[in-house]
Amino acid sequence: MEFDKLVHQPTRLQIFAYLYRHGETAFPELVEALDVTEGNLSSHLGRMEDAGAVTVEKQFVDRKPQTTYELTDEGQSKFEEHIDTLETLIDGLAGDTDEAGGQ
Amino acid sequence: MEFDKLVHQPTRLQIFAYLYRHGETAFPELVEALDVTEGNLSSHLGRMEDAGAVTVEKQFVDRKPQTTYELTDEGQSKFEEHIDTLETLIDGLAGDTDEAGGQ
Repeated sequence: MEFDKLVHQPTRLQIFAYLYRHGETAFPELVEALDVTEGNLSSHLGRMEDAGAVTVEKQFVDRKPQTTYELTDEGQSKFEEHIDTLETLIDGLAGDTDEAGGQ
Repeated sequence: MEFDKLVHQPTRLQIFAYLYRHGETAFPELVEALDVTEGNLSSHLGRMEDAGAVTVEKQFVDRKPQTTYELTDEGQSKFEEHIDTLETLIDGLAGDTDEAGGQ
């Protein structure tokens, strides 16, 4: 079972999940939704961009600069693979019954 | 959404999952099942023991020393909370439909 550290890191996992669900998202919306500092978010988004998992677009809205982020096809695939791995792990928990396994 | 680093780290997540499902497990079985080095496994189990998540028992089987590991109640609870968090994240992905959300 392989976990891709790019996706597995807790803050990035939540960024991936948010962008996967919501599509293109402006930076301030991500800050608010994920309850992270701007510096922390920038750092993780930068790493995701370096890995080819997100694209960044800068534009002006009401004369103010706005930066938006969107998962690339590769980013979506990486995230989907990661979720598949987690689901496999979770499904495995209910596999057999034994005395000490909980549930 | 909070991720407990004790549980979230990839190798430990798999140790938690294995012990949760299989109950008390001997060290060599864990090495084989998780495909990790003995040193790496020892290090992670040590950290889990320090955190009160596993108990360690040493006994002799056929005159050979054998070390077994088992999740404590606290370890089981931590793991269950973590799985709940992951399930919440995964369930959230299918929440609304929007144009860029993949699936």
